[in-house]
Amino acid sequence: MARVAVLGASGYAGAIAATLVHRHPFFELAHVTARSDAGARLDDLHPRTRVPLALEPWDPDAQSDVEAALVCWPHGVAAPAVAALRERGVRVVDLSADFRLRDRGIYEDWYGEHGAPQLFGAGVYGLPELHREAIASADLVANPGCYPTAALLALAPLARGGLIGDVVVDAKSGISGAGREPTATTHYISADENVTPYKVDRHRHTPEIEQELAGQGARVTITFTPHLVPLAQGELVSCYVTPAREHGADEIAALYDDAYAREPFVELRNGPPGALDVRETNYCRISVHSDPRTDRILAFAAIDNLWKGAASQAVQNLNLMFGRDEREGLA
Amino acid sequence: MARVAVLGASGYAGAIAATLVHRHPFFELAHVTARSDAGARLDDLHPRTRVPLALEPWDPDAQSDVEAALVCWPHGVAAPAVAALRERGVRVVDLSADFRLRDRGIYEDWYGEHGAPQLFGAGVYGLPELHREAIASADLVANPGCYPTAALLALAPLARGGLIGDVVVDAKSGISGAGREPTATTHYISADENVTPYKVDRHRHTPEIEQELAGQGARVTITFTPHLVPLAQGELVSCYVTPAREHGADEIAALYDDAYAREPFVELRNGPPGALDVRETNYCRISVHSDPRTDRILAFAAIDNLWKGAASQAVQNLNLMFGRDEREGLA
Amino acid sequence: MARVAVLGASGYAGAIAATLVHRHPFFELAHVTARSDAGARLDDLHPRTRVPLALEPWDPDAQSDVEAALVCWPHGVAAPAVAALRERGVRVVDLSADFRLRDRGIYEDWYGEHGAPQLFGAGVYGLPELHREAIASADLVANPGCYPTAALLALAPLARGGLIGDVVVDAKSGISGAGREPTATTHYISADENVTPYKVDRHRHTPEIEQELAGQGARVTITFTPHLVPLAQGELVSCYVTPAREHGADEIAALYDDAYAREPFVELRNGPPGALDVRETNYCRISVHSDPRTDRILAFAAIDNLWKGAASQAVQNLNLMFGRDEREGLA
Amino acid sequence: MARVAVLGASGYAGAIAATLVHRHPFFELAHVTARSDAGARLDDLHPRTRVPLALEPWDPDAQSDVEAALVCWPHGVAAPAVAALRERGVRVVDLSADFRLRDRGIYEDWYGEHGAPQLFGAGVYGLPELHREAIASADLVANPGCYPTAALLALAPLARGGLIGDVVVDAKSGISGAGREPTATTHYISADENVTPYKVDRHRHTPEIEQELAGQGARVTITFTPHLVPLAQGELVSCYVTPAREHGADEIAALYDDAYAREPFVELRNGPPGALDVRETNYCRISVHSDPRTDRILAFAAIDNLWKGAASQAVQNLNLMFGRDEREGLA
Repeated sequence: MARVAVLGASGYAGAIAATLVHRHPFFELAHVTARSDAGARLDDLHPRTRVPLALEPWDPDAQSDVEAALVCWPHGVAAPAVAALRERGVRVVDLSADFRLRDRGIYEDWYGEHGAPQLFGAGVYGLPELHREAIASADLVANPGCYPTAALLALAPLARGGLIGDVVVDAKSGISGAGREPTATTHYISADENVTPYKVDRHRHTPEIEQELAGQGARVTITFTPHLVPLAQGELVSCYVTPAREHGADEIAALYDDAYAREPFVELRNGPPGALDVRETNYCRISVHSDPRTDRILAFAAIDNLWKGAASQAVQNLNLMFGRDEREGLA
Repeated sequence: MARVAVLGASGYAGAIAATLVHRHPFFELAHVTARSDAGARLDDLHPRTRVPLALEPWDPDAQSDVEAALVCWPHGVAAPAVAALRERGVRVVDLSADFRLRDRGIYEDWYGEHGAPQLFGAGVYGLPELHREAIASADLVANPGCYPTAALLALAPLARGGLIGDVVVDAKSGISGAGREPTATTHYISADENVTPYKVDRHRHTPEIEQELAGQGARVTITFTPHLVPLAQGELVSCYVTPAREHGADEIAALYDDAYAREPFVELRNGPPGALDVRETNYCRISVHSDPRTDRILAFAAIDNLWKGAASQAVQNLNLMFGRDEREGLA
Repeated sequence: MARVAVLGASGYAGAIAATLVHRHPFFELAHVTARSDAGARLDDLHPRTRVPLALEPWDPDAQSDVEAALVCWPHGVAAPAVAALRERGVRVVDLSADFRLRDRGIYEDWYGEHGAPQLFGAGVYGLPELHREAIASADLVANPGCYPTAALLALAPLARGGLIGDVVVDAKSGISGAGREPTATTHYISADENVTPYKVDRHRHTPEIEQELAGQGARVTITFTPHLVPLAQGELVSCYVTPAREHGADEIAALYDDAYAREPFVELRNGPPGALDVRETNYCRISVHSDPRTDRILAFAAIDNLWKGAASQAVQNLNLMFGRDEREGLA
Repeated sequence: MARVAVLGASGYAGAIAATLVHRHPFFELAHVTARSDAGARLDDLHPRTRVPLALEPWDPDAQSDVEAALVCWPHGVAAPAVAALRERGVRVVDLSADFRLRDRGIYEDWYGEHGAPQLFGAGVYGLPELHREAIASADLVANPGCYPTAALLALAPLARGGLIGDVVVDAKSGISGAGREPTATTHYISADENVTPYKVDRHRHTPEIEQELAGQGARVTITFTPHLVPLAQGELVSCYVTPAREHGADEIAALYDDAYAREPFVELRNGPPGALDVRETNYCRISVHSDPRTDRILAFAAIDNLWKGAASQAVQNLNLMFGRDEREGLA
């Protein structure tokens, strides 16, 4: 057994992370923290967790009696908490963006000043399907954003194959992606029966996708536009690739088979995936289509934005860091 | 007053068309027809219509005592009905695809044999913002598809400006677009909390968009992918344009202003539109963005798929054909 | 033409009230007011209104150049505004609860101190189907609450017939009933895929229903429980009546026919009504069932909580106060 | 390990039953059957099951190599299948209504002729909170209907306490309750943004609730009305009890505590429950309120209609029948 703290357990992803750790055969949920909700019991705030622990205010000294922590805080405030945990020898999966980017200038352009510069770049990018070995030996893992998770799983085989000349990523996400704070955007009356683009040209997941595509061999400037759709949890990315070179449909199929045939959490399908197919699971469901009429390659990926896009992927990473079967507690 | 028949009034678009004609100050709703639902009253089948007429089985002789008809039938079966009406001197707005395409080969490739070859190509493409004058003098108007309506209004200014090098159209539609027949796709449990692409590579609205873009000066092969999102009515198209040439943001703004500043049913906005903004209206709401980082132009358009994408646009066309203010009965 | 101001036009009911007045053939929308949103244009805040007026801060001197006002403010703050308008000779339909109750003690028990005691009880209860004549000669009309509107229309014929021994009212409302302020309750993630009772035993519409039932002859203490259901607009009340005396099914049918056969906005149906049947209309759709097995009478009524339950009923009242056809601008 | 067959695994409840058996530590899923979908793989039909078995046509000889079966067929056709399984020594949990009622005349009144009269009345009513011991020694368990599950758990303590003089049960269910067949009722456009009563006066769960209430000491004729609300899974029952005698709030609280304090799947709460609180769980969440103003007792219960209302309760029963911890595979 290894004791684990979940920081920021009152948010949507944090509550699911706490639930998964709580039910996990190997990990033991030792602390759950929250800021404004400290004192409340997690299962009062989020009944579906069935986690009967009280939320504690964050105190690095009181909560470092653990072997690992999942940090479910926003970028900026996450970094100092991660630093405090690392100083006390706690292994960390950070769900914020603070340790995902490796170029300091790019981080500052998109996010502003970093909250723990001494640790900048110290994280391993926690997409197991791309970086399994590095994750297994890491003390600090940067859990990917939800859109990068889906987009990179959809595109990585094409990137490795040298096939991406240019790409448009049109993403659709459920409302939980906008967070738990009540706002005009998350009001039922704004979201219901609506579909709308947001953060056009400037969503912060853009450089993250570009960095990791480059790591797979595709140095491209992507067009990425997210949209809000009226559902609670679920995400679909539709990737439109202009190929960099000639290719055959068989080659495409082989690239995806090579990449994913043995992946426990990637499901290759012939028909297009639906967000509902993977709801409340750690699966990513993918299909790829070559369109002879337009000479484009279309790749679709569906995930649950709060699971594979956040909480369950964090537990998958934790499993790897502790030498466990990565499916443990997730199947 | 001019008497009007609505054929296929038991479908979603047909029921709204009947409602709009029924409430119209100039037109009088003389007949509503249906196949399997003949005998029922329209307001029993569709309470929101408040149209107390009985649905009649289609009989060209009995129902040609009108000056105009709106034909809300599927392609294939619509053409013979249109032919029968035209032979009896009735002016027609056809909501099917049968008279939208001007290339017989393309029609047959995508739809199969035409149901009234003697009339093939006789329709004026009924997008008032592009073909207002031709519509005003037409006896047969081919009402555009819902996706072409939104995509063409989003892209026409760029097409005219010679700016479209290549374009990806990612469209999202509410479930009413799948029709009134109960199927696995339209079952609540399939659609709710889901988002999924459909008819990847092969949606029949593709050649229609290409034909009309060509008419505006852009001979391009488009990539078009529709998606189902969990809402009843509403549609958003997200168009990703690779520009054909250098340009400035001012030029783009001027192209859209020129095209739409005086259009009664197009709303240009700075921020991205939402499907809910135009629900149950004849408006199309558009925004355009130049992304200096990627050098792409993004154009978004939102409509109600059953209104501007079908029924209310048919009435807009009817207004034009009868010399009325095109806003009559629609504001 | 008569000039009308809408106070509190930034809320959901206020925005619809402004829209209906703006489109009305006889009334002219002269002012729209808002507190925190003053300065914004109403059609920016609520696109579907298509009302291009700027929201003004409330100023009784500046906005009393009208013949009538619709006050769409919460109880407590509404009363002083109503008093200021009445002092300046403006006729008022007040959508708050401030002038609905006639017993001062009951008002204070449920709502606290009244904001304009000099006017307490001066309003005519604005349910046209019960008080049409009094409304027509009133200067101050208290527009009913949404639940009382539906419950009273469902139950009034039984009350008049002396048939109500006891009654349970189980009501279901869409989320717009919870108001425009973003809260934990109105967050999409709280409301979506959920159904929950709220304000059990203590919803403030209870004494309002009891007062008006008594006025129709039924002095009963009702059990009333509202529930939130995941839809934007719409309301259904299910009324379970223990009869006070023996009766026949024919008598029940006759009571409802007598009450509603000539009512322009009440639709009697054999089958149970759905909230969607009356969405965005001023209609109330009712069905009544006698259950011989249990000897209970079941009456169901569906309305749109923001229309017949608020804004459109306010315009119906305004029509009556100005001697217009009560359907004007509402059909 | 015990081998289990799931008959009717292509329906919503059957698919979940198969999933729960498939994941269960003690049971092994040996067969899944379907009629029209035979040949398909269950995880193609229902991706969320992740059950990679092919659906077989029902054949009692081929599929009786199991120790137990869950029969997820409609009433009428279920009974002969149950009889065939029992003849071959297979223990059965039947999810249909065929073995729930103990009065043959009442069964025939509400359901028609019974499909296996030799077994009529042979089932133990499978609500573990009421009949745990009998279930543990039964070979045939009649899994309760979804509405009876929630209503009985809400009302049983009051029935035992002799407190139910009369009761109105107003129930709200998600659309999955209407089954997987595409119909006008289950069409997205009919259900979305709607709420409507159905089967007023004549829902077949009525006599089942009455039978079991009588078994707990309350011989009452209930008023029961179900409603459809726009969500996929989830159910809330609101029970309005006219007390049979004087009582105190403490007595009520004690009755519920006695009944449920040690129940693993009943959650007593002070505030009213929401269907979302128990989604995709075997929990029933209950609150009870005494209203001094009306002298009524209000009891609310929320369940997932497909889980505690069907599939997971069937597994809870199976656990009991095989001497396992009843929480096994369900926590």
